[in-house]
Amino acid sequence: MKVNGIPYRTIWLSSDNRAVEIIDQRKLPHEFVVVRLQTLAEACTAIREMWVRGAPLIGATAAYGMALAMHGDASDAGLENAYARLYETRPTAVNLRWALDDLKQLLTPLAADQRRDAAYRRAQEIADEDVAICSHIGDYGKQLIEAAWVLKGKPSLVDGGVNVLTHCNAGWLATVDWGTALAPIYKAHDAGIPVHVWVDETRPRNQGASLTAWELAQHGVPNTVIVDNAGGHLMQHGMVDLCIVGTDRTAASGDVCNKIGTYLKALAAHDNNVPFYVGLPSPTIDWTIDDGVRDIPIEQRDPEEVTVMSGRAADGTVTDVSIVPDGAKAANYAFDVTPRKYITGLITERGVSIASRASLSALFPEKA
Amino acid sequence: MKVNGIPYRTIWLSSDNRAVEIIDQRKLPHEFVVVRLQTLAEACTAIREMWVRGAPLIGATAAYGMALAMHGDASDAGLENAYARLYETRPTAVNLRWALDDLKQLLTPLAADQRRDAAYRRAQEIADEDVAICSHIGDYGKQLIEAAWVLKGKPSLVDGGVNVLTHCNAGWLATVDWGTALAPIYKAHDAGIPVHVWVDETRPRNQGASLTAWELAQHGVPNTVIVDNAGGHLMQHGMVDLCIVGTDRTAASGDVCNKIGTYLKALAAHDNNVPFYVGLPSPTIDWTIDDGVRDIPIEQRDPEEVTVMSGRAADGTVTDVSIVPDGAKAANYAFDVTPRKYITGLITERGVSIASRASLSALFPEKA
Repeated sequence: MKVNGIPYRTIWLSSDNRAVEIIDQRKLPHEFVVVRLQTLAEACTAIREMWVRGAPLIGATAAYGMALAMHGDASDAGLENAYARLYETRPTAVNLRWALDDLKQLLTPLAADQRRDAAYRRAQEIADEDVAICSHIGDYGKQLIEAAWVLKGKPSLVDGGVNVLTHCNAGWLATVDWGTALAPIYKAHDAGIPVHVWVDETRPRNQGASLTAWELAQHGVPNTVIVDNAGGHLMQHGMVDLCIVGTDRTAASGDVCNKIGTYLKALAAHDNNVPFYVGLPSPTIDWTIDDGVRDIPIEQRDPEEVTVMSGRAADGTVTDVSIVPDGAKAANYAFDVTPRKYITGLITERGVSIASRASLSALFPEKA
Repeated sequence: MKVNGIPYRTIWLSSDNRAVEIIDQRKLPHEFVVVRLQTLAEACTAIREMWVRGAPLIGATAAYGMALAMHGDASDAGLENAYARLYETRPTAVNLRWALDDLKQLLTPLAADQRRDAAYRRAQEIADEDVAICSHIGDYGKQLIEAAWVLKGKPSLVDGGVNVLTHCNAGWLATVDWGTALAPIYKAHDAGIPVHVWVDETRPRNQGASLTAWELAQHGVPNTVIVDNAGGHLMQHGMVDLCIVGTDRTAASGDVCNKIGTYLKALAAHDNNVPFYVGLPSPTIDWTIDDGVRDIPIEQRDPEEVTVMSGRAADGTVTDVSIVPDGAKAANYAFDVTPRKYITGLITERGVSIASRASLSALFPEKA
């Protein structure tokens, strides 16, 4: 999507066809910095230190990391070393593991002098496949936004347009391009449908207030940041036409595990007859799980994410400030699970599914 | 309640029986500063600049402000001037107006030389009446906490105790003592019931993370700060035994207008069979309103409360930081309305009422 009017992906091959360039997402929204990765070590740092984030983007970065490694040392030992070092950057990231396994399987049988080119080609394919998945989600989701707009009598933006509420950042910054929850919004906007987005700030890490608000604004999509507390009031008063969120992991039954607070918005949507959709790339479906509330483990993260906020001070420097009394205790549950009964539809790359194993299985029979 | 082991109210007559002392709440939770108010002008500043906050405390401060004014100039002109200057500090505060009218009505018929003592006496009465109301709410609410604890098998704190979730600050800092939502918690704690409180940070102004966490900790009540997004997950997993919140304004039907986000917690409580109570001093009941969602106007405040956070930097200074991209738009709805169907009970100073006009009228027949 666009930054300063210029189209970007979150990761791309440099014009020298060797190095890889990424956006240092730690600096957003206060600074837009492109970083060049030239070595395996630099790719590891970018993943470990969260210069890149979001499951699909981590996978693509790992794949390019293997290519950078093959450029340096394409021996069997070099391949093993690259796999091990990239894997340990974020060992719980499913897409990271998947991309590394894919590359290893491809490269191992090849002669050393063929590995470099094969790795670059495959990394590019992995990135392109992610773009295709997100683009399809965008096409299907755009139809839902358009339908809401037509039902509303096609108001212009001056008359409120069509209002979509989203939580966290499931945008192009979390993928290679388009995003998951935001892909339908970009597609609708680009098609001339007047979309306005309510952006949940998404405490504790504020991915909404920082990343989602930034990427929407850069692409020209009107948006308004709200605190996570506000969505219920907006829905009670007809100010939200539909909700679209992302997912970190989806039970085969359709229960959705996403950023903490998603469940509360789904409850408010249900209480006010607002459709609640999930942008869902099929790789996030866990076909082994049915009861998401019971069986998806919820990560607890550092309480400092709750007690300390980061932002830009008046002098321009990015500063951390403590917002609690000295010695205060905090808990930091990172995700919650929205039961399928509160989900209107799952927008996958193959079409919109109701939240049920039967419906998902019909769309993905080869995986079910 | 206690601060550093010493019992405090939020406002009290100084030992010279003339000046009034308050806690400068702008400095909390990072600093505990007591300020002495000696003149009408100082009382006005304390209210206008929010050194004191919370409807009952604002009312008590206004009453004492009238007393300070009578100490300086007890003439008819002095009385009129004091009323006008105090009124304009926060013209929309209902308790402020009520306290000022009460004092004016009392003082106007008196001879000038009797006004000073009468004003101090009445200010003290107003403060004491608020303490009595909150204490009664605490006594009734304590029974509910105790019942939840007994039902749970009287676990010790090591085994989790009884877990109460609260939103915003409806504690003693918002009243003269005890608080509304927190009064039952203090009473239960003081009676030896092992209570643990989940404290919603309460964006955008963070009254939970700053004030509620501070006052509970000072009084020795175990508590954990969570982001506003977390309560649904906690309730889904049996980690909340009951919710108690405050109210800014209550429709006679029982619909409750409280800090933005309250409604989302009530939905989650309903979805998980967690009792949801409101600490309700009867002066906040608006007997003229039945449909709270439709008829209670919701204040929109400065978007900067959303986009700029205040906290303590590493060097100890309290610093403002921007958490959104340059030029980001934000909206700031300050309250929401929880429909009565999601409220288990209203804890008033005369007992616990179900959320209905009939039940509230039976408790307050003289007002209904």
